[in-house]
Amino acid sequence: MSVTAPKGFVASGVEAGIRHAKKDVALVRSTEPAVGGAMFTRNKVQAACLQVNRAHLAVAEPQAVVINSGVANASTGAEGYANAVATAAYTSELLGVDVEQVLVLSTGVIGMHLPMERLLKGVDAAVAALDPDGGSDAAEAIMTTDTHSKETVVTRDGFTVGGMAKGAGMIHPDLATMLSVLTTDYPLEPGEALDLLRPAVDSTFNAITIDGDCSTNDTVILFANGASGIARTPERDASFAAALLEACDDLSRQIVADGEGATVLAEIHVHGAVDGPQAKAIAQRIATSMLVKTALFGHDANWGRVLMAAGSAPYNGGFADIDADRATLRYNDTVVLDHGAPTNVEPDVSGPSCTIALELGLGDGSAAYLTSDLSYDYVRINADYRS
Amino acid sequence: MSVTAPKGFVASGVEAGIRHAKKDVALVRSTEPAVGGAMFTRNKVQAACLQVNRAHLAVAEPQAVVINSGVANASTGAEGYANAVATAAYTSELLGVDVEQVLVLSTGVIGMHLPMERLLKGVDAAVAALDPDGGSDAAEAIMTTDTHSKETVVTRDGFTVGGMAKGAGMIHPDLATMLSVLTTDYPLEPGEALDLLRPAVDSTFNAITIDGDCSTNDTVILFANGASGIARTPERDASFAAALLEACDDLSRQIVADGEGATVLAEIHVHGAVDGPQAKAIAQRIATSMLVKTALFGHDANWGRVLMAAGSAPYNGGFADIDADRATLRYNDTVVLDHGAPTNVEPDVSGPSCTIALELGLGDGSAAYLTSDLSYDYVRINADYRS
Repeated sequence: MSVTAPKGFVASGVEAGIRHAKKDVALVRSTEPAVGGAMFTRNKVQAACLQVNRAHLAVAEPQAVVINSGVANASTGAEGYANAVATAAYTSELLGVDVEQVLVLSTGVIGMHLPMERLLKGVDAAVAALDPDGGSDAAEAIMTTDTHSKETVVTRDGFTVGGMAKGAGMIHPDLATMLSVLTTDYPLEPGEALDLLRPAVDSTFNAITIDGDCSTNDTVILFANGASGIARTPERDASFAAALLEACDDLSRQIVADGEGATVLAEIHVHGAVDGPQAKAIAQRIATSMLVKTALFGHDANWGRVLMAAGSAPYNGGFADIDADRATLRYNDTVVLDHGAPTNVEPDVSGPSCTIALELGLGDGSAAYLTSDLSYDYVRINADYRS
Repeated sequence: MSVTAPKGFVASGVEAGIRHAKKDVALVRSTEPAVGGAMFTRNKVQAACLQVNRAHLAVAEPQAVVINSGVANASTGAEGYANAVATAAYTSELLGVDVEQVLVLSTGVIGMHLPMERLLKGVDAAVAALDPDGGSDAAEAIMTTDTHSKETVVTRDGFTVGGMAKGAGMIHPDLATMLSVLTTDYPLEPGEALDLLRPAVDSTFNAITIDGDCSTNDTVILFANGASGIARTPERDASFAAALLEACDDLSRQIVADGEGATVLAEIHVHGAVDGPQAKAIAQRIATSMLVKTALFGHDANWGRVLMAAGSAPYNGGFADIDADRATLRYNDTVVLDHGAPTNVEPDVSGPSCTIALELGLGDGSAAYLTSDLSYDYVRINADYRS
């Protein structure tokens, strides 16, 4: 179901021959007037479609999004920009909405131009296939190296939040080759979608990493059309914020679990840092360390690498504060380092998931990160992604 | 020859049973009164021996360094500190010098205590084995995951610079599981060794990366004993600085070429950045990107990943400046992106080395970085380093 679980949304996913032998064009549309908001990658190199989307969101509320996989339309210059605009224009005409009400997303190889003829034929087919049960087809069409589609549905208090996401590599805050479309039939005012999206994304999509790389195309979009027909109350508003967070959390966990070549899922917790930003810098550094990630793959509690990473977390032009003599480190609740002294206790890290908790004893800063291991398959997948 | 190539140096490397079935204790000593200086990792978690060395260098000129491989003596608390002091004290007694004139280095697994009984027996053997031809034995004894020893000799104008280094993983500026000892018979005054070392290290050991990880033990030491007997002149001073740079450059290239699992050596050049620090931030980000490194392994000129990395180079709490529309990118002199437009020319990256040059067109900032690819063997080596 995913994005079509809330009332008043239709979607489709079709095969247009852009990425070989799979559905590769997705379309999501609200059948009721909707409001929306979106967050984009912070990468200084931004795909053409992101520039188009920013312009559209500045002047109109989005009613639909068209997405292709296979080609990212990033680093493609003026021609790439024109292609993104043409895609939105063509789609808007078929849907009978303004061009500014259509958003465009692309994901795939950077530096290649969109095959426009095939893409627009795909848009024809996607519009024809729009269906209240089309959510799963859309979720399938946006996949690239994902091994399965990511969908979520959260229903409570008379409204529903639905969502789909793709992403398996180049995943890193702030967003990466990750795309996510969230829909809800809860009623929101213009501008509210983005305000509600920000905190939910911050602790979910922006706290996961697979390879530390930050993509050119990453986007999270929320559409809200009020089709549930329920009235807003402060309690329901709180319930909606919680449901949105739950949907983002569910999708972001699905992304890490399906990380390219991932065999182990690890939660990194940092407590007692000087402050929150330093805690986040340290957690991120541990979560992206190639040595930590290869040790996870080897089911080796080589905890010295966690300390090594924690001690070199870039922060404010230097490194975040850590005093090794005050540090206590746990693997799945087994203490391996107690206030700077090794305990010589070997933790059990044989399972498919692992929690690594570092207590720094310096202040109140806490942060958490989700990461995956670095495996042979990660290398295999990325050594010949284009072939 | 390495560290014993200059006049007035003896060295040895012996097997003490710390790291299985290889030489694991090295000793280097100047037979003439020497001056010296050292640079250490910036990691906030520092091995016990580094704390000891800082204290010794503050009060005396170093005459000898004793090094063990196998155990890093990092994250080992008060006991680790006591062990490092005991190692220096024991060695100084055998050599007949002050304890503060002896430096101590360790490299290997973090979080394990030194096996002191075996280590001190190794020191006995190393002192007995000191020899003017012992440089290569010492270079062998400091290896961990290195597949071969790294030695260099630069002779010119009546003096010699010799050096050895180890390092194959956890290599990253500013220094990592990398150790290097440089010796020279050129005459220097107290304090000069460090002043001369800094600029040489900055463009060599501090501009290489294998896995983006920054170790707890990294150290570069320079001993100068004046045993060449030549007098100093401004020309010879310049010649010495050039020889020191050449020795550091040679050793740092050997380290990257022997990077864990490395099959491809890549030079990353960034030109036209806003300024030098931004150029370095961008070059470093490209050089550490897992996606760039896996593409190198696959001999795939997937240049979009270079742009992706360049656009997300951490700098001053944000990202370094880059305007994708002005960027020109070359692989081995083949232009793949010309002022933001893809050329659709496929470069030849089939060889064992590769130059990637990014021209940003924003200013005068330049930087270069040496990096290696990310291969199956890197994962294999690091997934079970401890076993």
